[in-house]
Amino acid sequence: MTFAATVLTLYPEMFPGPLGVSLAGRALREGTWALDAVQIRDFAIDRHKTVDDTPAGGGAGMVLRVDVLAKAIDHARTSAPAAPVIALTPRGKPLTQARVRELAQGPGVILLCGRFEGFDERIFAGRDVEEVSVGDIVLSGGECAALMLLDACIRLLPGVMGAASSGHEESFENGLLEYPHYTRPAEWEGRTIPEVLRSGDHAKIAAWRKSQSEIDTRLRRPDLWERHTGVRVQSASGAQREVQDD
Amino acid sequence: MTFAATVLTLYPEMFPGPLGVSLAGRALREGTWALDAVQIRDFAIDRHKTVDDTPAGGGAGMVLRVDVLAKAIDHARTSAPAAPVIALTPRGKPLTQARVRELAQGPGVILLCGRFEGFDERIFAGRDVEEVSVGDIVLSGGECAALMLLDACIRLLPGVMGAASSGHEESFENGLLEYPHYTRPAEWEGRTIPEVLRSGDHAKIAAWRKSQSEIDTRLRRPDLWERHTGVRVQSASGAQREVQDD
Repeated sequence: MTFAATVLTLYPEMFPGPLGVSLAGRALREGTWALDAVQIRDFAIDRHKTVDDTPAGGGAGMVLRVDVLAKAIDHARTSAPAAPVIALTPRGKPLTQARVRELAQGPGVILLCGRFEGFDERIFAGRDVEEVSVGDIVLSGGECAALMLLDACIRLLPGVMGAASSGHEESFENGLLEYPHYTRPAEWEGRTIPEVLRSGDHAKIAAWRKSQSEIDTRLRRPDLWERHTGVRVQSASGAQREVQDD
Repeated sequence: MTFAATVLTLYPEMFPGPLGVSLAGRALREGTWALDAVQIRDFAIDRHKTVDDTPAGGGAGMVLRVDVLAKAIDHARTSAPAAPVIALTPRGKPLTQARVRELAQGPGVILLCGRFEGFDERIFAGRDVEEVSVGDIVLSGGECAALMLLDACIRLLPGVMGAASSGHEESFENGLLEYPHYTRPAEWEGRTIPEVLRSGDHAKIAAWRKSQSEIDTRLRRPDLWERHTGVRVQSASGAQREVQDD
C-alpha cells in the first residue's frame, strides 16, 4: 500500500525538495509513497486570499486563521480520511522514533506547516490535530520539520532501505543511542579501531557494542538513560540537554 | 557580514532546496548568507571514488571513511577557518535554541551530513567535530537535519525577519513554550477567543500569556519545566517525552 503524504503549506514548491532524490526519491517514483503538496492559500475565503491576521491581544507577527486552516484540513481529509493530521509546532509533543514507526505503518499523514507566529490555537481541538515538535528550536516555518518527519517515515517503508539495513539497530529503536562505528583504514593518523572489533569474536563484539551503547547513552543523554532504566543520573557534567535563559 | 554555510554531503543537489524560497531564499540572494554544498565523494582517495566501507566487527550497512571525511573537512576549513564543524547524528547533543543563537551570531557553520550507518567515530576527535542531534528520530541522512539547523539560524540573521518579529518571544527563547495564539474571527464553530485577549488591558494580557506559557510548559514538557524551575514534575500523565522499547 502506498504511504500517502499530504502537506498543507504556503510553500508547496518546497516539496518534495530533498525527498525527490536518493532513496526517498526512488521510492516516490516507484509509488512506495505519494506526495500531495497543497497550497493553504487556495482555501482563503476572501478575494484577497488572506490566510493570516494580527494576534488577538496584540503583539508582533501574524497568526494563521483557523477558518482557512480548517477548510484546508477538511479538503485533505476527503482524500485521506484515515491519516492523522499533524501540525509541526514547537509547542507540540516531541517526535519520537516510536511515533515515527507507528506513522510509517499507517496509511500516511497529513502535515500542517505553520508560518509567521503560528496557528490559531482553536484549530487543534476543532479539527483533532496532533501537535508535534521536532526539536527545541524555532524555525521560520514547519516545512523543514515536515521534510524531516517524512524522511524518517519513508526510510521505514517496505523496500526502501533494502536488505542492507534492518533499521532495528539504530539509535532510539531500543531506547538507547547506537554504539559507535568504525571502518577501514585500521589506523588513521595514529587512531586505531578498537581491538575487540578486529577480534572476529562475535559474542565479544556484541557485548562491547551493548556496553558502549549504554555508556554513551548515560553520559550523553542522561534523560534517555533515565527513561530506559528508571534510574536518575545525578549529573554535574552539564551533559543534560539545556535550554538557557538569554 | 555574510553567514557562510558549508554543507559536506553526498547529495549537494538537495541544497538550498527549501531554503531557496521564502525569507531564507531572499536572504540568500541578498547575500545575508552564502551556501557552499560540497560533494564528499570528490575527496575519495581511490579511483573508484569510494566513500564508505563495511563496519569493523561486522553488521549491516556501510560506514563513511574517516580519511575521506577528514579531507573534505580540511578543504572546507581552508575557506572558513573560524566556523565550527557540526556533524548531524542521533548520537549528538540535542540542538537547542541557545546554540542556534550562538551559531547565528558567528561566522557560519560547516555541516557534515552522514548517510548509511553513519561516520567512522574517529572523525569527531580527529577533526574537532561537534556532534549534534535534531531530535530523537533516525533519518536516512543528515541532509534534512542540516536544512532545519540552517533554517533556524538564518531566520535570526539581521534583516531576515524584519521588524515584524523580534524573535525574542518565541518558544524556548526563555526556556518555556510560547503561549497560544488567536486571531479573527472572534467566534468560529462555537469556539471563542479567550475574553482577556479582547479586553485591551495590556497588563492583564501579558499576565495571562505568561501564565499560559508556564502552564503549557509544565503540562506538555515537564522536562523543560524542570530545567527552568529546578522543580521536578511528578507526572503520571505520560506527558513526558518517551522513547519506548519495541
